[in-house]
Amino acid sequence: MLKRFSISLDEKLSDQFDNYIRPRGYSNRSEAVRDLIRKVLINEQWEQDSEVVGVVTLVYNHHQPQLQEKITELQHEYHQQITSTTHVHMAHHHCLEVTIVKGRASQVKELAERLIALRGVKDGNLTMSSTGDHLH
Amino acid sequence: MLKRFSISLDEKLSDQFDNYIRPRGYSNRSEAVRDLIRKVLINEQWEQDSEVVGVVTLVYNHHQPQLQEKITELQHEYHQQITSTTHVHMAHHHCLEVTIVKGRASQVKELAERLIALRGVKDGNLTMSSTGDHLH
Amino acid sequence: MLKRFSISLDEKLSDQFDNYIRPRGYSNRSEAVRDLIRKVLINEQWEQDSEVVGVVTLVYNHHQPQLQEKITELQHEYHQQITSTTHVHMAHHHCLEVTIVKGRASQVKELAERLIALRGVKDGNLTMSSTGDHLH
Amino acid sequence: MLKRFSISLDEKLSDQFDNYIRPRGYSNRSEAVRDLIRKVLINEQWEQDSEVVGVVTLVYNHHQPQLQEKITELQHEYHQQITSTTHVHMAHHHCLEVTIVKGRASQVKELAERLIALRGVKDGNLTMSSTGDHLH
Repeated sequence: MLKRFSISLDEKLSDQFDNYIRPRGYSNRSEAVRDLIRKVLINEQWEQDSEVVGVVTLVYNHHQPQLQEKITELQHEYHQQITSTTHVHMAHHHCLEVTIVKGRASQVKELAERLIALRGVKDGNLTMSSTGDHLH
Repeated sequence: MLKRFSISLDEKLSDQFDNYIRPRGYSNRSEAVRDLIRKVLINEQWEQDSEVVGVVTLVYNHHQPQLQEKITELQHEYHQQITSTTHVHMAHHHCLEVTIVKGRASQVKELAERLIALRGVKDGNLTMSSTGDHLH
Repeated sequence: MLKRFSISLDEKLSDQFDNYIRPRGYSNRSEAVRDLIRKVLINEQWEQDSEVVGVVTLVYNHHQPQLQEKITELQHEYHQQITSTTHVHMAHHHCLEVTIVKGRASQVKELAERLIALRGVKDGNLTMSSTGDHLH
Repeated sequence: MLKRFSISLDEKLSDQFDNYIRPRGYSNRSEAVRDLIRKVLINEQWEQDSEVVGVVTLVYNHHQPQLQEKITELQHEYHQQITSTTHVHMAHHHCLEVTIVKGRASQVKELAERLIALRGVKDGNLTMSSTGDHLH
């Protein structure tokens, strides 16, 4: 069910916001405000150790001995949380691997930290997102 | 001049937002949404190298030879941008110094980076804020 | 070619760092320091609009009319930059889509912003990573 | 007591790091690496709800009725944690106020959130720093 409420803004603030959202392609202010609201709610989910979705992005050198085995081992340890893995051959020496993980925030962080710490992983990031289930 | 516009939210999203803003003490949703909007606009001011206000926070060991002199020297180099400096004796060995800087974003960043890089500075941070002039 | 240099740390700082890296599984301090160094270098690549790799993560409601078409259209507009897309059916109503994009930082950001702004996209994030090519 | 350990870096990574630290004015790599290490340790202190130092920066419109009273009231409620407050008249209508707070991370965050939520506060930020006591 939709609910409407009204926001009062100084006219200049409203103009500035319009200038901000226009080049981004937002169809209207309502959608842009919803995005801002959802973002703070997702931060809360992570802080409160709720069920979340995280995306772990690793850039690694595939020549690094045993690295691929160690990644696979770790992924198996958390197989109940891992939804999918995408592997891309980025350049001569480097692969990019994206792993989608669903679980409690603390578990997802733990797996991300362990993957990122592996020798040969040149860059690692955890994107903190949501299952969408409680995001309206 | 005030402008009003209405936001439509799924009822559940609206409830979640209320749960988020209540413990923070927001008097109403309108004020909370304005804060979210101003935050993205301030980010833009910094990305576009506009006139901004930055707050540089340094924690340093005051026993470090020549450190205080070097901080003062750097601050003089940027004296036209520096509004004020507050110094606090935090613990036996450590001081905290807060410098308020007003200028173009790139200048403020440059000063912050140079202060933070000084030997003996244990922690340094730049808070990216605004003069408030164009923040309605 | 490997280069060695030595770091001097207060013994207590060194102990604290060991306590930090141990639960993360780092095999040694050298690897942990390299990770910290690479992270600031990648930030620089993005700030200097170099050739980078970004990962765009979208959570969206697949019942949203025309959303999937709009995502596909945008992806085609940037097809020379897009390396791969992974789609996951996250829950009854929500999909998660991960798009790997390689290009100049400003282009990658632009695509990310336009995807995230689409109506029906509940959460969107851009992970700023690297091709690995200049990351040693 | 000082401890030395050696880091091995690919020569190119080492050159890139030198290019990164030079314009920032770091006197040597050792100091730059210590800064990176301390930063992750301070993040840990905040995550583990240790004794920390926070700096709350508020930009507000001093014409806003009762705002100054509310700020003062809140500051008194946390007076045992507040070390100092600096007030600057930034522009015709706006003040910048910097409050240095020492306490458990959760308390410092709570005060910051309540100050930032006040009506008339146009921008608010919390800088997460340290007493320096356990930062070597």
